[in-house]
Amino acid sequence: MLDDLELKVFYNTLFSRRDVRSQFSGEEMDKKVLGRILLAAHSAPSVGMSQPWDFVLVTDPDIRSRFKDHVYKEREAYEASLEQDRAENFKRIKIEGIMESSLGVVVTYDPHRGAPSVLGRHAIDDAGLYSVCLAIENLWLAATAEGIGVGWVSFYREEFLGELLGIPKHVRPIAWLCVGPVTHFEKVPDLERFSWQSRRPIEPFLRHNRYESQSDLDQVVYLPKDGFDL
Amino acid sequence: MLDDLELKVFYNTLFSRRDVRSQFSGEEMDKKVLGRILLAAHSAPSVGMSQPWDFVLVTDPDIRSRFKDHVYKEREAYEASLEQDRAENFKRIKIEGIMESSLGVVVTYDPHRGAPSVLGRHAIDDAGLYSVCLAIENLWLAATAEGIGVGWVSFYREEFLGELLGIPKHVRPIAWLCVGPVTHFEKVPDLERFSWQSRRPIEPFLRHNRYESQSDLDQVVYLPKDGFDL
Repeated sequence: MLDDLELKVFYNTLFSRRDVRSQFSGEEMDKKVLGRILLAAHSAPSVGMSQPWDFVLVTDPDIRSRFKDHVYKEREAYEASLEQDRAENFKRIKIEGIMESSLGVVVTYDPHRGAPSVLGRHAIDDAGLYSVCLAIENLWLAATAEGIGVGWVSFYREEFLGELLGIPKHVRPIAWLCVGPVTHFEKVPDLERFSWQSRRPIEPFLRHNRYESQSDLDQVVYLPKDGFDL
Repeated sequence: MLDDLELKVFYNTLFSRRDVRSQFSGEEMDKKVLGRILLAAHSAPSVGMSQPWDFVLVTDPDIRSRFKDHVYKEREAYEASLEQDRAENFKRIKIEGIMESSLGVVVTYDPHRGAPSVLGRHAIDDAGLYSVCLAIENLWLAATAEGIGVGWVSFYREEFLGELLGIPKHVRPIAWLCVGPVTHFEKVPDLERFSWQSRRPIEPFLRHNRYESQSDLDQVVYLPKDGFDL
């Protein structure tokens, strides 16, 4: 359990984490820092301790360039699906830093690891997938603590990325993370800065005992109204 | 970016996180602490800033008891699927702290939030599901920083939990988290203490440019060999 000062440092790190697109400096990653954030990812909880993740570190410019071309095609497909004013807004939003970041970290899910009979997966098979996401968030927060930016790119087809990196058919790519030093972290998320979507308050998403019930939540949980008081 | 001392506190928190089953004290949760860890969850990254999660705080003993009965039936079903020596080992392992923890936090996924045309979900629909998991890891780490234990129960059928809490059909329960003060955090994960599965070293899971290639990784990443040096 941390003391109040340490807690503030911890929460400040958590709240300052951003999904970085535009602020990568392109400097080379410090190898020790990269090692630490990968160990943070690898220390995530996993169902039945299956640790079903792998991390493909992509530095090759040609692979990154081919991935970026693919992402731009998917970007166009998405843009074409939007109504006009939404599409105009979307044009202003940068969705990736594939070439500008120091490297890509592709995180994959191998459902065979620890199988068969992974403890905790017999009723919920997706629990393995969930574990990989927990590892990604560990990586993201550790990177933030180190002053390193992370941007999750999800404008791609899994089949394309799988073939690009020679990923076996049974293994699923879950994320392409753009990773590297940044000039700064923005205070406000990009999608909010560009008026795409604002962060919602938490209150409507808290419920008590039953999904439809919020009646006596103030007896159960206290939400700081002005800033984040400890 | 944190200084070296702050980084140690951050990483120590991340590495001391455990999946808690047996160490819940049953004390009531401090309402402010609960508020903080829920805000940490709600501050997770989400695809297209959809924030597709909800948090059902379950304190009702009857609901918890019915959930526990269901979990024990699923436990038996899993045990029956194991070979004899594995089943004998499994009998020793506690898989939940539903009644002993201070409350359950059921985290759900609502794919309708922000839909249609959630930015980043057109090619990978599961990205919304991934966001919910990132929120869960934020909650878990914040709880650890606060000295609060979290245990993810996954021995249940989603349909059962959905009906138990009156969750709408289109919303998916992702986790039942047992949450509350603990007597202590174990140094070694339960599944390792009970010889079910040991943590694997990270090296085989690091790859470079292509999934099959680990050839020149030491030029890209440095993994501390003895402890976690900064």
